[in-house]
Amino acid sequence: MIGYPNKKKTLPPVNDPAISKAGRGMSLEDDLNKTNSFYLDVDRAVIFKKPTPIQVVGVSYPSRNKAKITEAYYRQASTTDYNGVYKGLPIDFEAKETVNKTSFPLAKLHKHQLDHLINVNRHGAIAFLLIRFSSLNETYLIMVELLLKFIKDNDRQSIPYDWIKKEGIIIPYSLTPPVDYLTALDKLFTKGVTRNEEK
Amino acid sequence: MIGYPNKKKTLPPVNDPAISKAGRGMSLEDDLNKTNSFYLDVDRAVIFKKPTPIQVVGVSYPSRNKAKITEAYYRQASTTDYNGVYKGLPIDFEAKETVNKTSFPLAKLHKHQLDHLINVNRHGAIAFLLIRFSSLNETYLIMVELLLKFIKDNDRQSIPYDWIKKEGIIIPYSLTPPVDYLTALDKLFTKGVTRNEEK
Repeated sequence: MIGYPNKKKTLPPVNDPAISKAGRGMSLEDDLNKTNSFYLDVDRAVIFKKPTPIQVVGVSYPSRNKAKITEAYYRQASTTDYNGVYKGLPIDFEAKETVNKTSFPLAKLHKHQLDHLINVNRHGAIAFLLIRFSSLNETYLIMVELLLKFIKDNDRQSIPYDWIKKEGIIIPYSLTPPVDYLTALDKLFTKGVTRNEEK
Repeated sequence: MIGYPNKKKTLPPVNDPAISKAGRGMSLEDDLNKTNSFYLDVDRAVIFKKPTPIQVVGVSYPSRNKAKITEAYYRQASTTDYNGVYKGLPIDFEAKETVNKTSFPLAKLHKHQLDHLINVNRHGAIAFLLIRFSSLNETYLIMVELLLKFIKDNDRQSIPYDWIKKEGIIIPYSLTPPVDYLTALDKLFTKGVTRNEEK
């Protein structure tokens, strides 16, 4: 969220567990920003992260045409973080990271995010959740229909890693783009899993 | 953008031209927020305004769990302000107001907004521009294909009101919702104008 364009990066220690496996260690958000830029560059899809909603209370004008916000507060979002257009269809998803190795805590997915995924899916969007197990360097895609089935069938506060590994679609790590979730989606659709076509 | 939830509204003078015609005078943004909430409530579509992008530079924590942004700046958006899902299709639009009575100045539509409309339309979204002539209390919907045709065929800095009145779709004012652009779209599609189906 906070960008320091000119800040020099300190090199992490060589045996940092986050990067030792394959020289990586970027956040899922950074990886998704790069991935969405890549999709836009090659004209494959138009998908953007929504800005964080901020309530502005005070603004000053230190110079002409330059507004400086002096007091503001983070607000709760009403939707997921990512949406756009892919192959003529609306696409909408939320992305979450966990350091856990054995499960994904459902508390990380807020109620308004799940409600929004259900909503857009009912209206015809491809809706899903991306989960990154950062300690394992693995990212999975779970369609919202599957997620709802899990929540309905299980009285649990978290989704076991083994279930995600079995039921989700793993997104292989690549350099360009770092999180190629559209190719993962394509595989899923080729398999015959279709979006909710009602309405 | 700036909200003062408890600020008392001063009543405008009775002969204020903005409200004298029909007791109205809300901004297009306010009207669209109400309209989109209405569409969500009646489950007709899921369309949201994107938050204004803000670059946060300084944050303080006056109390536990409460972040106060003390320095931040408005950033240029990369997309339009509104998008979502309607009848299984991606929908994307920009909304502009003008006090002019005879034309809409094209400078009000920024390059990145037009580029984004062209982009999402090419990928299959219903993409359009809403123009409100606030002095006339009239709001029109112009599909991006039509807008591009105008720009291509005319070497002008503004779109004449008469052209918009003739070629655009007027959105009748109603109370719930105030700007019923989906009904205007429905009429357009019934007439046989279809979205770009390529790709």
